[in-house]
Amino acid sequence: MTTLTNERVCYFNGRIVPESQAQISFRDRGFIAGDGCFDTARTFGHKIFRLKDHIDRWYASQRYLGIDCGLPAERVMAITEDVVRRNLHLIDSDDDYWVSQRVSRGVNPDDPVAPSGLKPTVIVECQPLPLKARAPLYRDGMDIVVPAVRRIGPDMLSPRAKTHNYLNLVMGDLQAKAADPGAWAILLDVNGNLAEGTGSNIFVVRDGRVRTPEARYVLPGVSRAIVIELAARCGIPVEETSIDLYDAYTADECFITSTSLCICPARGINGRVFGDGRVPGPITKRLTAAYVELAGFDFVGQYLRRLAA
Amino acid sequence: MTTLTNERVCYFNGRIVPESQAQISFRDRGFIAGDGCFDTARTFGHKIFRLKDHIDRWYASQRYLGIDCGLPAERVMAITEDVVRRNLHLIDSDDDYWVSQRVSRGVNPDDPVAPSGLKPTVIVECQPLPLKARAPLYRDGMDIVVPAVRRIGPDMLSPRAKTHNYLNLVMGDLQAKAADPGAWAILLDVNGNLAEGTGSNIFVVRDGRVRTPEARYVLPGVSRAIVIELAARCGIPVEETSIDLYDAYTADECFITSTSLCICPARGINGRVFGDGRVPGPITKRLTAAYVELAGFDFVGQYLRRLAA
Amino acid sequence: MTTLTNERVCYFNGRIVPESQAQISFRDRGFIAGDGCFDTARTFGHKIFRLKDHIDRWYASQRYLGIDCGLPAERVMAITEDVVRRNLHLIDSDDDYWVSQRVSRGVNPDDPVAPSGLKPTVIVECQPLPLKARAPLYRDGMDIVVPAVRRIGPDMLSPRAKTHNYLNLVMGDLQAKAADPGAWAILLDVNGNLAEGTGSNIFVVRDGRVRTPEARYVLPGVSRAIVIELAARCGIPVEETSIDLYDAYTADECFITSTSLCICPARGINGRVFGDGRVPGPITKRLTAAYVELAGFDFVGQYLRRLAA
Amino acid sequence: MTTLTNERVCYFNGRIVPESQAQISFRDRGFIAGDGCFDTARTFGHKIFRLKDHIDRWYASQRYLGIDCGLPAERVMAITEDVVRRNLHLIDSDDDYWVSQRVSRGVNPDDPVAPSGLKPTVIVECQPLPLKARAPLYRDGMDIVVPAVRRIGPDMLSPRAKTHNYLNLVMGDLQAKAADPGAWAILLDVNGNLAEGTGSNIFVVRDGRVRTPEARYVLPGVSRAIVIELAARCGIPVEETSIDLYDAYTADECFITSTSLCICPARGINGRVFGDGRVPGPITKRLTAAYVELAGFDFVGQYLRRLAA
Amino acid sequence: MTTLTNERVCYFNGRIVPESQAQISFRDRGFIAGDGCFDTARTFGHKIFRLKDHIDRWYASQRYLGIDCGLPAERVMAITEDVVRRNLHLIDSDDDYWVSQRVSRGVNPDDPVAPSGLKPTVIVECQPLPLKARAPLYRDGMDIVVPAVRRIGPDMLSPRAKTHNYLNLVMGDLQAKAADPGAWAILLDVNGNLAEGTGSNIFVVRDGRVRTPEARYVLPGVSRAIVIELAARCGIPVEETSIDLYDAYTADECFITSTSLCICPARGINGRVFGDGRVPGPITKRLTAAYVELAGFDFVGQYLRRLAA
Amino acid sequence: MTTLTNERVCYFNGRIVPESQAQISFRDRGFIAGDGCFDTARTFGHKIFRLKDHIDRWYASQRYLGIDCGLPAERVMAITEDVVRRNLHLIDSDDDYWVSQRVSRGVNPDDPVAPSGLKPTVIVECQPLPLKARAPLYRDGMDIVVPAVRRIGPDMLSPRAKTHNYLNLVMGDLQAKAADPGAWAILLDVNGNLAEGTGSNIFVVRDGRVRTPEARYVLPGVSRAIVIELAARCGIPVEETSIDLYDAYTADECFITSTSLCICPARGINGRVFGDGRVPGPITKRLTAAYVELAGFDFVGQYLRRLAA
Repeated sequence: MTTLTNERVCYFNGRIVPESQAQISFRDRGFIAGDGCFDTARTFGHKIFRLKDHIDRWYASQRYLGIDCGLPAERVMAITEDVVRRNLHLIDSDDDYWVSQRVSRGVNPDDPVAPSGLKPTVIVECQPLPLKARAPLYRDGMDIVVPAVRRIGPDMLSPRAKTHNYLNLVMGDLQAKAADPGAWAILLDVNGNLAEGTGSNIFVVRDGRVRTPEARYVLPGVSRAIVIELAARCGIPVEETSIDLYDAYTADECFITSTSLCICPARGINGRVFGDGRVPGPITKRLTAAYVELAGFDFVGQYLRRLAA
Repeated sequence: MTTLTNERVCYFNGRIVPESQAQISFRDRGFIAGDGCFDTARTFGHKIFRLKDHIDRWYASQRYLGIDCGLPAERVMAITEDVVRRNLHLIDSDDDYWVSQRVSRGVNPDDPVAPSGLKPTVIVECQPLPLKARAPLYRDGMDIVVPAVRRIGPDMLSPRAKTHNYLNLVMGDLQAKAADPGAWAILLDVNGNLAEGTGSNIFVVRDGRVRTPEARYVLPGVSRAIVIELAARCGIPVEETSIDLYDAYTADECFITSTSLCICPARGINGRVFGDGRVPGPITKRLTAAYVELAGFDFVGQYLRRLAA
Repeated sequence: MTTLTNERVCYFNGRIVPESQAQISFRDRGFIAGDGCFDTARTFGHKIFRLKDHIDRWYASQRYLGIDCGLPAERVMAITEDVVRRNLHLIDSDDDYWVSQRVSRGVNPDDPVAPSGLKPTVIVECQPLPLKARAPLYRDGMDIVVPAVRRIGPDMLSPRAKTHNYLNLVMGDLQAKAADPGAWAILLDVNGNLAEGTGSNIFVVRDGRVRTPEARYVLPGVSRAIVIELAARCGIPVEETSIDLYDAYTADECFITSTSLCICPARGINGRVFGDGRVPGPITKRLTAAYVELAGFDFVGQYLRRLAA
Repeated sequence: MTTLTNERVCYFNGRIVPESQAQISFRDRGFIAGDGCFDTARTFGHKIFRLKDHIDRWYASQRYLGIDCGLPAERVMAITEDVVRRNLHLIDSDDDYWVSQRVSRGVNPDDPVAPSGLKPTVIVECQPLPLKARAPLYRDGMDIVVPAVRRIGPDMLSPRAKTHNYLNLVMGDLQAKAADPGAWAILLDVNGNLAEGTGSNIFVVRDGRVRTPEARYVLPGVSRAIVIELAARCGIPVEETSIDLYDAYTADECFITSTSLCICPARGINGRVFGDGRVPGPITKRLTAAYVELAGFDFVGQYLRRLAA
Repeated sequence: MTTLTNERVCYFNGRIVPESQAQISFRDRGFIAGDGCFDTARTFGHKIFRLKDHIDRWYASQRYLGIDCGLPAERVMAITEDVVRRNLHLIDSDDDYWVSQRVSRGVNPDDPVAPSGLKPTVIVECQPLPLKARAPLYRDGMDIVVPAVRRIGPDMLSPRAKTHNYLNLVMGDLQAKAADPGAWAILLDVNGNLAEGTGSNIFVVRDGRVRTPEARYVLPGVSRAIVIELAARCGIPVEETSIDLYDAYTADECFITSTSLCICPARGINGRVFGDGRVPGPITKRLTAAYVELAGFDFVGQYLRRLAA
Repeated sequence: MTTLTNERVCYFNGRIVPESQAQISFRDRGFIAGDGCFDTARTFGHKIFRLKDHIDRWYASQRYLGIDCGLPAERVMAITEDVVRRNLHLIDSDDDYWVSQRVSRGVNPDDPVAPSGLKPTVIVECQPLPLKARAPLYRDGMDIVVPAVRRIGPDMLSPRAKTHNYLNLVMGDLQAKAADPGAWAILLDVNGNLAEGTGSNIFVVRDGRVRTPEARYVLPGVSRAIVIELAARCGIPVEETSIDLYDAYTADECFITSTSLCICPARGINGRVFGDGRVPGPITKRLTAAYVELAGFDFVGQYLRRLAA
């Protein structure tokens, strides 16, 4: 039985260890080549939300990459619950965790061009949500910048697999942050349609209709799926379709979904303001309320309380 | 002063340590995102070849990614020489090393979407060349398979930067190895021209003329530059240009260049045999001889001696 | 009235002749330029299946190419039935025929760049199905290889017309057969989505949903339409949409449709195995059963009986 | 020894036969699939011009397609000379021949998707040049129409192989002839650059500089190579490069090269007139004169004499 | 109060003036750069049809371009009604008007690369419909030519904004008119699908199903929306989807929609005739009748009456 | 003979008039459709520089668009000189002019879709250079932002014609100015290579080599040609080639050329600084000095003197 310490613990290749002991060889293909995949859920009031959906997607990412973590899904779910539970004493009652499953193809052998028979590196770990840093986004709305760099095409590396290869998105973030340190990047896809940002999906609203990019060109987020489901339930027309800068510049409202943000209003894009500039817009507000109800947790309040702090 | 052990040592964030102590946090962006870059030289008879060219390219990769290793080039060259020297006692006189410089953007802070002020992770390390495993390539010629997956386009992530994001090439290798476990993958670029494989450049020869893909779509290798220079010196017409499957299927000869292989003949591609199938072809032979002379080292002999072993 | 011989007869420019007398001038544009189109139905128990659908598509191909066979559809249907009937005595009761209508633009005049007023060459002919050669596919599942060559784009030559220009698919087959002599090629389209193989459409199944490429990028097969119709009838969700290698690598099941194969399970693609590797998967099984019922003919049994032979 | 008849003879699978006896099975893959390749030279004053260049290109086309005609190049050259000689008595002294080598993959076996071990069909044949029909082109200049259909991309089927798959070009010709029955089509390539027409290369001249599309996107004609060589010899700057409609609409002159036409002036494109509309322009005139001198034959005179007839 | 004259008046930057007094500075960005947008409705029997839809689209075009005309939509609608009313006395009772709203970004300041704070130029004007010139289209059907030039891609300048930048369409019209002075151009989009012509949308009909290009690649016309709505109401299947030359060449019927033409039959495309060549086809006829009923105005009769004149 | 006033005069359709009298009908296709083209030279010390080059390019733009200004080049040159001369008294001795030739297709007739026989609108006008506004660029270097919008492809509307359709570039400028009001936009072309900004060409310098985008994708500026010529003269390697963001981020120096700026250093791009951030870099300095010498005019001094003012 483990003693409570003020260091987080994680699952690392079969054992629960303090995070500082979960060390990776620099010859691990996860480091050398980003040759791995992951998935990340969050807790609401210390309970993991839709873990099964994230785990399923993680296994799909593994199949795509030809990596096998060697554990059945049920075991990974139990480990995930365990890791969160062991770390709960380290956060306040109004804080919450990201919790991630990660696997790399393992440590490179002598001939790295022809690796086979590697032992995968498996990690399950959690990290407190950056609630305070992101709280202003709910008050002011997110500013989006569309960088020049295009999202990698699905015939090169599918954006639907959540891999450890993030440089394409990093390059986009660097340009967006240079334009505005508080901005988030949303990249265009190979056809010039809006795709996605780092871990985030975009939705635009016009004339009461909600649209989000097709799944082929993005990581189809769990929060994205929830919003689509909620819109349908609320009788708001919703469509997965090609959307581009014309749609963005003429939108009445816009919002972003991600595991940590759930649903978060955007104020503008490339210096243009959505609608009359007030956030959240009415549709975003309804969907946020529906999300809060579905989750049984007021994530907006949780963020906004950090503004006072 | 360090005691000689039978464990390799490496440079790790300012210190020389045994490789087993050069451990990376799983929160390092190199692991989480492949957010780093590297370069790799090799030794010929225990002497590093064209180190300056590799170091220059490493700094260019850093500039592209907006990463700064924090060390001047001269210091990195000295460290590199030192790392090789400290590990020479671990290999035989007829063995040689790869030696690599690596840098990642550092360990992710709380909000991984907006990282700044990170301390980069810097590693200089060496690894014995897989001489025995690759020796048959010089006897039989390499078999190339062109997979269906396309090389990432330069407006997404430039192939000219040698980064830690290798999944695009890994996906190509997986298809090629499924077709033939001994085959090497060479991917097509976004325009359907031959591009490159994992760490390797391709050259085709027809009617005495040598051609290799344009630098924009590939990592322009140091060995590639040497071969271009040697061809010019030998009076063999050589061109950096678009080459495609028509060029490959109608080629008289074909060869691959890479740091470890220097120049290595290819036997066929997608089941087609180059020329009359004998390797190396006459132009490949001349360029190999010129390479050996330039390097002052018979790398072909070094490989072929492993066949007997 | 014709005497029964052991040579097949065919319709050739207005007459029924032994196949050996249906000879084409080498100046026929069908030979010189592949300048023609065709369609192929099959018999089930010696009865032609869905002939009307094939004939309609043949006329659409003619319209697209600006070729006019000069015969009304009803006449071609009658000829087709007649050709089959005249050749039935040449096959066993458990064998069946492919039966094809073919038309070329005719024999080239002096100036082949500006041909007009040509007399089309029209052929209706049948050929025994290669039941024995293909029987193992039903037992083991088909192995698919996705070659590097892309399917011709619809703004160049529409894949929806069934023409005599097959070299694009032949180039794909050659690469696939080089990787594995028993494999079938399925090419990607210009957008990197799965398209089709020689005379074959692909379907993937995941989470109980069936998907097949959009008709714009493929020849929309008659068997493909039947499977879509049967899936709807069986309450299985089915969609014509973009599918790519991510879909293929993460699929639970996969199958191929074609006139001869009707519906045939696939085992794997590019060395990856679908689902747990057992064929046919449950959805494929249901759709196959529904197809057999619709056709009133057990084509799977017909194939599998050849394995014992 | 053969009797002189007024029917042309050709080489057909090993024998010299009257053309009417050179009949192809409708199951020949050349007919079914356009699965073959060819090359065509012409005679000047009854002597074959640059036969070796054409034969070399034919073998390259075979290599690309994976077809082997089974004969050495020297034998094919001798057959070609023989075929022409045997047919010379059938044309006037001021007429000339096209002479072509053709090979198809052979007659399809039972399972056309997996053919192997086929016996290729080989033909060498000649046909009188359509001198009279094309004579007005030299007097008036050719009118070019650029159709909407794009030339097939080199990653689908290389335009550098001279195959029997011409439907892409046929579709272009049909649109051009609909716009103007006397017009010739020149298609754009996948990048929107001028590519080629049926058997013809295009050159534009502006400010004394001659440019023609890059070889990757076209069949690099023997006449095209001659013109490039002649321009260099005459001190006229010449370049193989991307040229597009801007280049065409702003050109001072334009001409077409092909085996039959050698070099032929164009008057306009898409209704625009080149330069002041007089043909041939001065550079075209110089290159034509140089061509006539090189060939030792006044092909322009040969064409123009038909106008009077 | 204005005196009735025989010069039309228009709204020009706040005032109603004779058209000849509505003069633009050559430094207006509308002239210098086409930097403006517009929309155009028509009258039926002197009453403006669906003005609100046009005004909404005009404001969307402004948002896209970042131009603000400075007037509320209600005011622009009132001005538009006023402008028509003031000009009605200038046309016959059986004539009708186009009425347009136009805005440019205003007159360029000293540094045209960095303009800001400009005062927009706003015009509302009307023009008699060219009923006589276009009347034959309803009798004979329109002839369509698809030029080589591609419609500008939506990631360059969205075709959904109705701007003053028409050169791309003008270039298409010039090629079409060169092929046939009476023809209309319909351009292909970046994917080779049919897009649109100058102010016109295309519909094809096959097997009783109506299809029109997706809105992303075209200006989605008000008449187009009406036809889609009417088809649904009439129980005719209708779809916004990719359609290409295969669809066009195999269509049974085809028609064009535009503000002035409402719905107008097409006879052929690129020299091919739709169906049996009789216009209008049965579906076109039904939709035209439905349109006439919806509009409460027989626009076909209005056009056809000019033929007698 | 005209009296000197303090209003500038211009050439307008055959007459010299005060600018305020050079008014355009709002039905002019230049306003309605941006259907026109122009060119702009500048004066150095009140003398027009390289006027002939600009006039030649203007006529090429006209040919491309199928517009004919109706005046011979010599006449336009004389008018241009005249217009400048008549306005010189309005600027200080240290000021200079832009002088432009403009032509539109003319005033739209009744049926704007089928215009022919229009009378072109021709203007020659001058405007003082914005020396003060742009002076800081020479001191600080220009900041470049690469917007998400791509430059229009050459198969849609050639960037080599200097037309009145600028919205594509305007959309890019709007995004760049939103990121940084002082920034200039440089757009990527359809292949993701750096193309151009509004009236400006880009050059990057690395390892002493100067590179600028290929002419096909940009308006090949007169200043660009001068710099290429000067580099060659100075022995600095210079190349027209594909350059992309990798080239930009790893460049040592970068500069912009345009008619007004001649050659102007850039400080950074997308937040990245070129080289060590000091401007101008050494190569830029040499080329600037050579440009000043060629022009016989110190344009840098002229700009920098405004900083003190």
